[in-house]
Amino acid sequence: MSALALNTKLLRRILVGFIREEVLKTGAKRGVLGLSGGIDSALVAYLAAEALGPENVHACIMPYRTSTPESEAHARQVAERLGINIQKVDITPMVDAYFVLFPDADNMRRGNKMARERMTILYDQSAAFSALVLGTSNKTELLLGYGTLYGDMASALNPIGDIYKTQVWQLAEEMDVPQAIIEKKPSADLWAGQTDEQELGFTYREVDELLYHMVDMRCNRQELIARSFAPEFIDKIYNKVKNSHFKRRLPVIAKVSNRTIDRDFRYSRDWGK
Amino acid sequence: MSALALNTKLLRRILVGFIREEVLKTGAKRGVLGLSGGIDSALVAYLAAEALGPENVHACIMPYRTSTPESEAHARQVAERLGINIQKVDITPMVDAYFVLFPDADNMRRGNKMARERMTILYDQSAAFSALVLGTSNKTELLLGYGTLYGDMASALNPIGDIYKTQVWQLAEEMDVPQAIIEKKPSADLWAGQTDEQELGFTYREVDELLYHMVDMRCNRQELIARSFAPEFIDKIYNKVKNSHFKRRLPVIAKVSNRTIDRDFRYSRDWGK
Repeated sequence: MSALALNTKLLRRILVGFIREEVLKTGAKRGVLGLSGGIDSALVAYLAAEALGPENVHACIMPYRTSTPESEAHARQVAERLGINIQKVDITPMVDAYFVLFPDADNMRRGNKMARERMTILYDQSAAFSALVLGTSNKTELLLGYGTLYGDMASALNPIGDIYKTQVWQLAEEMDVPQAIIEKKPSADLWAGQTDEQELGFTYREVDELLYHMVDMRCNRQELIARSFAPEFIDKIYNKVKNSHFKRRLPVIAKVSNRTIDRDFRYSRDWGK
Repeated sequence: MSALALNTKLLRRILVGFIREEVLKTGAKRGVLGLSGGIDSALVAYLAAEALGPENVHACIMPYRTSTPESEAHARQVAERLGINIQKVDITPMVDAYFVLFPDADNMRRGNKMARERMTILYDQSAAFSALVLGTSNKTELLLGYGTLYGDMASALNPIGDIYKTQVWQLAEEMDVPQAIIEKKPSADLWAGQTDEQELGFTYREVDELLYHMVDMRCNRQELIARSFAPEFIDKIYNKVKNSHFKRRLPVIAKVSNRTIDRDFRYSRDWGK
């Protein structure tokens, strides 16, 4: 059995409790999230509906003109099964209004602008509904930096940020997320036929095993090699984690006083509530 | 002399060194920032030009259709004096393309969407120029939460995040920022005649004195009263700091493993570089 195998019933109870407690203690009762049609946001929708009640969950479907219709169909399937609220906002007009000024921008810039546009919409909708933005980045993506800073990586609460992609699959089975969503190849859906694993050059199963031993078990390079991980793979992943660390931290403030934000002045987010 | 009086020559040297060191150690050599026409971004432009050379500083001027022409004129004056690069992007088409869907949105929602649109542009331009995004939020704004999360509060590096607004004024004098910019009333320029101090209900001089004693000197309520701060003012500001703390922290991740991002897995941003 893989070290990544979970007690999914327990985990479900913990994550549902986390969402409920963290939302309610801010004085809010609703959550808003982007539903991409993929498994991560589907799982968060299932957890949120159980935690807050489907009437308190607002799902935004935010396709771009190149998004596949299948993504929207899957997002709608999740929302309809759960009975949560749906708001569709096509991001094409906003994104295209910008890139008309920069027609030579590459796919990376376009994908990041789209991810950030979606964030701005989720935060606006969270204001409209007095809701908290629920994050949908899993631990694999966060550690690899495979996401957009201030885009899909931005949220108020992230219920799945400490579970790996392969664990997302397990929990999605437990919660009865539609099989078509569990079984399809993970993709950022930025262009036709894109898949995460092809773009990354390794599978989630491979990288999750390595990340688990590297990060959670704190194995060093020698210990990882002894566990049969290839040295080149270890180095590649270690560098990805290291080079994306800036995406997991706050802006660096030049320290010139006794008490600097995020250094000496660092309370929990809901300090004093 | 106020407790907020600075050795501006020393501070200038420290902040210029901070920008240079933090940019160069990432392997980049350029900085990008939004120039609003206000004093905070003007000061950061002066510091960045001194740190990186004007040819390595890219300033974006990002007006909305309601922005005053004076703001743009002041931004251009800064850029021209320094000889830094200017890129103007009118955010009206992107912002209006969104709010046509939500015509009833209030000024707060509109202002936040604009601030976030500007962030997405700065990050896109930073990718285009291999530059780092320089933050322009001062300590007063950051502590009061008087800014937009994932909007103007987002950056890679913030050289002025540990100095109060009244200290920004002092340093701006030292660096010869145009007097018209130093002397005009601070404003988010979201609607005609808006000023920060009117909206906040107190002056920056008043609140900076209080924040300095409350945060940097760690005076408690009794000690603050003994220093002649009004109890209602103390409570009002304390609550503003407390209730905006979520804007100064990362998303909360549900902890379910040995090593969770931003809890047990928390290195400096440039870890291992």
